[in-house]
Amino acid sequence: MLPGPTNVPDSVMNAMLQPMINHRGADFHALYSEIEANLKYVFQTQNDVFILTSSGTGGVECAVTNLINPGEKAIVPVFGVFSERLAEKIKRRKGVPIELNLPWGTAPKASEIKEIVEKEPEAKAIFLVYNETSTGVTARELPQIGKIAKENNMLLVVDAVSVLGGDHLPVDEWNVDICVTGSQKCLACPPGLALISVGPKAWEKIGKTTNKPMYFDLLQMKESATKKETPFTPALPLLYALNEALRLVREEGLEKRIERHKRCAEAFYNAINALGMTAFPKGKENRSNTVIAVNVPEGVNESNVRETMREKYKVLIAGGMGKLKGKIFRVGCMGTVSQTEVMTTINALGNALKDAGYPINTEEGLDAARKMF
Amino acid sequence: MLPGPTNVPDSVMNAMLQPMINHRGADFHALYSEIEANLKYVFQTQNDVFILTSSGTGGVECAVTNLINPGEKAIVPVFGVFSERLAEKIKRRKGVPIELNLPWGTAPKASEIKEIVEKEPEAKAIFLVYNETSTGVTARELPQIGKIAKENNMLLVVDAVSVLGGDHLPVDEWNVDICVTGSQKCLACPPGLALISVGPKAWEKIGKTTNKPMYFDLLQMKESATKKETPFTPALPLLYALNEALRLVREEGLEKRIERHKRCAEAFYNAINALGMTAFPKGKENRSNTVIAVNVPEGVNESNVRETMREKYKVLIAGGMGKLKGKIFRVGCMGTVSQTEVMTTINALGNALKDAGYPINTEEGLDAARKMF
Repeated sequence: MLPGPTNVPDSVMNAMLQPMINHRGADFHALYSEIEANLKYVFQTQNDVFILTSSGTGGVECAVTNLINPGEKAIVPVFGVFSERLAEKIKRRKGVPIELNLPWGTAPKASEIKEIVEKEPEAKAIFLVYNETSTGVTARELPQIGKIAKENNMLLVVDAVSVLGGDHLPVDEWNVDICVTGSQKCLACPPGLALISVGPKAWEKIGKTTNKPMYFDLLQMKESATKKETPFTPALPLLYALNEALRLVREEGLEKRIERHKRCAEAFYNAINALGMTAFPKGKENRSNTVIAVNVPEGVNESNVRETMREKYKVLIAGGMGKLKGKIFRVGCMGTVSQTEVMTTINALGNALKDAGYPINTEEGLDAARKMF
Repeated sequence: MLPGPTNVPDSVMNAMLQPMINHRGADFHALYSEIEANLKYVFQTQNDVFILTSSGTGGVECAVTNLINPGEKAIVPVFGVFSERLAEKIKRRKGVPIELNLPWGTAPKASEIKEIVEKEPEAKAIFLVYNETSTGVTARELPQIGKIAKENNMLLVVDAVSVLGGDHLPVDEWNVDICVTGSQKCLACPPGLALISVGPKAWEKIGKTTNKPMYFDLLQMKESATKKETPFTPALPLLYALNEALRLVREEGLEKRIERHKRCAEAFYNAINALGMTAFPKGKENRSNTVIAVNVPEGVNESNVRETMREKYKVLIAGGMGKLKGKIFRVGCMGTVSQTEVMTTINALGNALKDAGYPINTEEGLDAARKMF
């Protein structure tokens, strides 16, 4: 129950066992075409989509290095570890991030973005983390921010690593010019691939970006894609796995999949409330449906509780990152998540807290969760 | 029989099926430590070694971006597609490659390197492709080039993507400061990982390199390695596979493995000669033991022959890259290669040529190869 890598269905694991083929041959071209079509479905886009052999961080770096020239400004709301990382990447390209620093646990509002856009007419892009994996917060005003970007002829780049396929993100409808996700989160595929969509407005800018690193050069990817190939040797077993994972998404249907994630998330939040604990995000509107962040009750040792969960109850969850280390639990509500996983996790968390001497009635949490199913 | 990805043993494939674990937890730390120790064995080094989720090209880019600041000069012998690519990467970092352009099919001589080193005292590094996958050439004077680098206090960076584990490359003994290889070549693992060793002289320079891209930042990798972790989510199934692939290398023994590659390569070259064909490299001393490049006989359509090999004889080999497209066949002699693979490939090549109307006696090729076993 980590916020990625998540559990992977057997058929996706087994897909990796297919033989090594020539990544410049007809069989590969067919595999590539299938993945491409299904990625467009999941991204809800007509834009170009590409498969990168890298982590999600590599995918976000690809977006940054293809768009930012030295000295160029970009607006970056910072409200957790991954948005901090995004600003840092822009600095490493000698770009200038205009940071909107927000309290962790909150999300940027469209009105705040609008204000900065007006103050910084030189900024030509907004880089937004849609789902902050480190705080369990989703930036729910993304659609309005997309409108602001469009009206001001700015690029909108969305880091959707821990959310695409698990919550709403219609890339074209919401004016997202570049969207990045990872294989190991809501798509329930093993880690090692980043997936990226690139729209026409982004291509215009990419053509003017100089000194792009070769490995993440989107123009080279676009050229190779005309042959249904990647520029460099791809992580073939992971492409086989991704193809099966995407087939499962289509089989379930994207809307149903998102609905399932939402229901499981609500079950988690209900249970946490019933157990007398609180979610980390400030305000219900900020709560993520894919990463559940829970405040560690006072006097409880976070690390010990997680160890009990792992060793005694066989459930793996994550702790806090950066300045939230020791202060929150983070539960992945992603991919294959269902009632079984939710109930097992609540049971493990409640019992581990009780084992640690914290007064808690696990049954109340389970009852509250059960109501959602 | 591609020059990568190569055939992967069943136990390596099956290793990928192990469960997704937390890449920040104790089980992962144990896996990382095991891989690290075995990589040091294969690289024959006491230097630091790291695992990158990327292709070999990504690994080489990692070396370049960690060493080259804008305006800095580096010597690059160019004698094929991959050394061209290396020079291009340096240019993209705004570095200045001092190119030693050589005829394809030949390799740089130590005397030629020495001459440039004397002419270009500002150049502080030599970037060498040890095995040019595009031409089937190995730069046999690497040990002497290593001495020149050491004597002149220059860094030596070696692209060993298609050779490490299949031919001699004692990293420390030959003064290689940074060495890069890929998982899918002589290590007989699926593609998707690059492996890199970094020595003390390289670390000194890396500390002075500015604006490194985050995804390939070696200093961050070094810091994470103290915890036996990678900075970003690794391609877990491929790490499982690599661990098993390295275990098999140790089980066989590196020297024996190299000897096996050499014997198979000689069998290939003998057969080619007996069949009245010629190897692409000029001079026996330039011939690779891991990539066998063969001139396409006059009047023969390379693409048709490979198609016959694939469809009728079920053997997959590669054609030429770049300006050698249509002019050479390339056969991978890597990883699990043995007498069986060699004989099957020669049989398929000979018969496909005969099918194409080329006068050839496949048996003579097979006899010549058989003598090596």
